[in-house]
Amino acid sequence: MSEFSIIDRFCKGIGATSEHTVIGVGDDAAVVNVPSGMQLAVSVDTMVEGVHFFPSVAPADLAYKLLAVNLSDMAAMGAEPKWATLALTLPHEDAAWLAAFSNALDAAAESAGVQLIGGDTTKGPLCLSLTIMGLVPKGKAISRAGAEFGDDVWLSNTVGDAALALKVILGQIELPESALSNIAPALHRPTGQVALGLALRGVASAALDISDGLLADLAHVASLSQVCIEIHQERVPLSDTYRAYLQSGGSYESALAGGDDYQLAFTAPSKQREAILAISDVVSVPLTRIGSVVEKTAIPVRLLANGKPVKLNSDLGFQHFG
Amino acid sequence: MSEFSIIDRFCKGIGATSEHTVIGVGDDAAVVNVPSGMQLAVSVDTMVEGVHFFPSVAPADLAYKLLAVNLSDMAAMGAEPKWATLALTLPHEDAAWLAAFSNALDAAAESAGVQLIGGDTTKGPLCLSLTIMGLVPKGKAISRAGAEFGDDVWLSNTVGDAALALKVILGQIELPESALSNIAPALHRPTGQVALGLALRGVASAALDISDGLLADLAHVASLSQVCIEIHQERVPLSDTYRAYLQSGGSYESALAGGDDYQLAFTAPSKQREAILAISDVVSVPLTRIGSVVEKTAIPVRLLANGKPVKLNSDLGFQHFG
Repeated sequence: MSEFSIIDRFCKGIGATSEHTVIGVGDDAAVVNVPSGMQLAVSVDTMVEGVHFFPSVAPADLAYKLLAVNLSDMAAMGAEPKWATLALTLPHEDAAWLAAFSNALDAAAESAGVQLIGGDTTKGPLCLSLTIMGLVPKGKAISRAGAEFGDDVWLSNTVGDAALALKVILGQIELPESALSNIAPALHRPTGQVALGLALRGVASAALDISDGLLADLAHVASLSQVCIEIHQERVPLSDTYRAYLQSGGSYESALAGGDDYQLAFTAPSKQREAILAISDVVSVPLTRIGSVVEKTAIPVRLLANGKPVKLNSDLGFQHFG
Repeated sequence: MSEFSIIDRFCKGIGATSEHTVIGVGDDAAVVNVPSGMQLAVSVDTMVEGVHFFPSVAPADLAYKLLAVNLSDMAAMGAEPKWATLALTLPHEDAAWLAAFSNALDAAAESAGVQLIGGDTTKGPLCLSLTIMGLVPKGKAISRAGAEFGDDVWLSNTVGDAALALKVILGQIELPESALSNIAPALHRPTGQVALGLALRGVASAALDISDGLLADLAHVASLSQVCIEIHQERVPLSDTYRAYLQSGGSYESALAGGDDYQLAFTAPSKQREAILAISDVVSVPLTRIGSVVEKTAIPVRLLANGKPVKLNSDLGFQHFG
């Protein structure tokens, strides 16, 4: 099958359609309209076989997660995802794999309102890179740099399940079979918190998604905002499975430094507490206040366990090199 | 070195700055303004070690070419390149390689007026994917679908040198040492024809860049425009080195089906001939009339050698799978 046939069969017509798309897949470039009053948000995330996923992962799961990790970046900016380009590098032409991948990407993109407007298929070790583009009203993007002294620190849903599932799969820890089936979806089928991100525009002072570990990611907000963030370990929201693991002698590490969570952490003035709880109801996403923004100190993130400081090493999270 | 240090050291501040960029590298997503009256053009191109380049290629050449092949897509749409995101997958952290790559990308992007606004560095087999974004006035993008019966077919500069150089390097043909040094830059340092693309807005009826081979690429224009394209082989512009190779018994194959040329082929009504020759002068790019748009037939592209049809096989060009 030629590259052109691949693009024709598996890249065209993927995802939602948009009145703002002028030229889609099939020309030298796609052309889109950014409506007046809106800005364009752009982000890229890559997944490499053997690094971000096991060779055994189903192509449908891969498609779903590739989109989700990118949706998560749009969510963290308060941007509405609209378009994507896909760079797909495959070791060999495999029509069954491509069909499964492309059907799943189509369904996931359609449901997220995202249209695939460009693609490049190349031969090589399996590597998938998606650039996502979204719209945000002028001046309304939620950056990482806006946290202010006295703000609350919030977290959506729970963290740690994906990292915990990975440890079980790698044989580093043991959990009952039922426990793994509870937490595996967090690893294979994360969901970007897009509705939450949109609702937080004008409410959150800073936001980011937790992909590299809660503490490491919060350190970015702290550094860019020139503040320190104080977190209460016992307030960090955990799943029942994670709590059971803790009670049997497990560690907070996967929750605090595991990564791959794709939850939103955000800061907001305390006067926004009621508004935030109302948003939690509307978007049906539990939101937990886990700490506060304090004055800048030598370390960007301070972790307290029952009020007492916990010593952290310099590497607060998952890093691809290091 | 952590991913964050890599991004800080090698991805920030790359390329030109732009008044339209609101948030650059370092947040969950970049945010840019698309000025009123403009549309956004988006394209992605990937380069994989061992497929698109030899492991021995200098990182500076790689950076230069990665940008050039993407600039070429903007040129083919008549779009002004403005922003890029980079997905860089590297087998291991190599500060010298990264510094050379990033310095070259910075220089090339700066000179092209492109700003790097997003990046993702991951570990894995060497693979580089760049998504480029540009601006084009509303309704002025030059698509592949606008060629009309009676139009002329034009080509910029010459074609075939890159494919010929590759054959020499692979030992498939032999040329004098001086010949290779004449044509190697076409392979390692192609240049996107951005100024030409901008000048062709409102003049060309269709355009595309020649990356997969002249005939195969023209077939896309023919198919999308529902016409047939007739090319006169002896009019196809060739370098002196290529002509010498032909005279010593060489073939037209690299020129007609080689690819990797990054020249613009375009169609235009014959009344535009003078305007096109004036554009050629202004942008200092030789433009040659190589054929014409004729009525649709069963085959999209017809090749004539001294007026006589040349039989073509169905595979008109370089394809990554197949």
